Amino acid sequence: MLDYNVPGGKLNRGLSVVDSFKLLKVRLDSSCALGWCIEWLQAYFLVLDDIMDNSVTRRGQPCWFRVPQVGMVAINDGILLRNHIHRILKKHFRGKPFYVDLVDLFNEVEFQTACGQMIDLITTFEGEKDLAKYSLPIHRRIVQYKTAYYSFYLPVACALLMAGENLENHVDVKNVLVDMGIYFQVQDDYLDCFADPETLGKIGTDIEDFKCSWLVVKALERCSKEQTEILYENYGKPDPSNVAKVKELYKELDLEGVFKEYESKSYEKLIGVIEAHQSKAIQAVLKSFLAKIYKRQK
Amino acid sequence: MLDYNVPGGKLNRGLSVVDSFKLLKVRLDSSCALGWCIEWLQAYFLVLDDIMDNSVTRRGQPCWFRVPQVGMVAINDGILLRNHIHRILKKHFRGKPFYVDLVDLFNEVEFQTACGQMIDLITTFEGEKDLAKYSLPIHRRIVQYKTAYYSFYLPVACALLMAGENLENHVDVKNVLVDMGIYFQVQDDYLDCFADPETLGKIGTDIEDFKCSWLVVKALERCSKEQTEILYENYGKPDPSNVAKVKELYKELDLEGVFKEYESKSYEKLIGVIEAHQSKAIQAVLKSFLAKIYKRQK
Repeated sequence: MLDYNVPGGKLNRGLSVVDSFKLLKVRLDSSCALGWCIEWLQAYFLVLDDIMDNSVTRRGQPCWFRVPQVGMVAINDGILLRNHIHRILKKHFRGKPFYVDLVDLFNEVEFQTACGQMIDLITTFEGEKDLAKYSLPIHRRIVQYKTAYYSFYLPVACALLMAGENLENHVDVKNVLVDMGIYFQVQDDYLDCFADPETLGKIGTDIEDFKCSWLVVKALERCSKEQTEILYENYGKPDPSNVAKVKELYKELDLEGVFKEYESKSYEKLIGVIEAHQSKAIQAVLKSFLAKIYKRQK
Repeated sequence: MLDYNVPGGKLNRGLSVVDSFKLLKVRLDSSCALGWCIEWLQAYFLVLDDIMDNSVTRRGQPCWFRVPQVGMVAINDGILLRNHIHRILKKHFRGKPFYVDLVDLFNEVEFQTACGQMIDLITTFEGEKDLAKYSLPIHRRIVQYKTAYYSFYLPVACALLMAGENLENHVDVKNVLVDMGIYFQVQDDYLDCFADPETLGKIGTDIEDFKCSWLVVKALERCSKEQTEILYENYGKPDPSNVAKVKELYKELDLEGVFKEYESKSYEKLIGVIEAHQSKAIQAVLKSFLAKIYKRQK
């Protein structure tokens, strides 16, 4: 179960912990252990989210719950993955002065992520399928909670705690990391529709699943009255012909171009905020993280 | 979701925390908050276990995941219940000297419970349905991990921590509570088959589900060759006629009588161990807990 679910990702989150340690000059043998904690956290979320989203593939293989003989036992496997995080934290850091803060941080970020998943699920499934409820602020709120805190804030916050910092003094770092996380998820939404499934390791189903994707929000902003009707008629339906019509509309609206512009503008904005930070070391941490994801293809 | 899943149980676990506080003379306004933490932990386990066991009813109402519009979203609801435990702990106890130990305790016990669920699931589902793999030691191992630690050890351990005790000095208390938990689960197995579903608040399905119940283990011990064949033919099948044949066999083997004898012997043994404990206060805690469950009907 561990071999199936923990490796196979890009390791962005785990490696960011290790890189942040280096850049903040924290000398600690256990930085790899901490990086793996975030990868296990990620594995836990993916195993459970795939069941809730009824997904098919993940990292180029069937979702864990679809493996024969696994099924709903995958829920407990997710819980076991999650429980090992605290065992790893306890084993490596129990005596350290930052131990309590570290445990609190993991718990807080897990809670934020579960809230994000909740907002996502109730936005997508509650009441009638109505595209009118989708907007950029709604998209932002889902992404901030569901992805940004655990994928972007958590790795850097871990490193800051171990460098002896008080996280309350680093709200600006949190804010830029949340913005970076939102940028990352917009890429994700874009790749779900436009990337080669072979490269991506999964087959995107955001259109079929009536997801509040950045693409549909942007489409709604740019649609004529007739195009809006096409979108309403075809979004969120499982039939490939409906999906094809939505993708065609996205091409007509030049969402690829809109995305490219968003990508370069976001990058410039983020670099601007990062370079205004007073600490060169923190600048380096943030830039190294941004470099990992800028113009990513998977 | 909270109103549906948190209340409605017997509150044994939560009230045991409060009672233990009183008996150990810990003066702490937040003892109720801690009692509720265990009730929330219980709600979290039940919501997820009911999905994995494909259960129908719980506490006299449909299992949460069977409520229309809920479905697999129940997984995230379980996670939200779980995350609130740490929010409650943090809100009430963050500044206290026992805070780290309390958080570690909850994490350890959650891990033990997930291990118990894993042992239960793999024992029940792995490979062929073969009754030969069921025995008293297997039953004990499942129950110890899946039920005893969180239902019996955890409430008392919480109270001990707050009374300033080091849990490592109380392995004897842990052992007697684990034995009490095993006795509790044997009752549970008995009631699953023999109690009135109306009183119990759920319809037992251990026979259909091929569960490693205390009853089937005892039946296997007592069966003649012919009776063993009947058990092998009918155990773990959904058809009511198969279930009826198993229940008939249980009556032939007088498992009600066997249980009654087990119940009184266990009680005497537990009382004996408790009265040998050097601390009168701890004796009182353990006796009050035992009194809550002795000869329970639900």
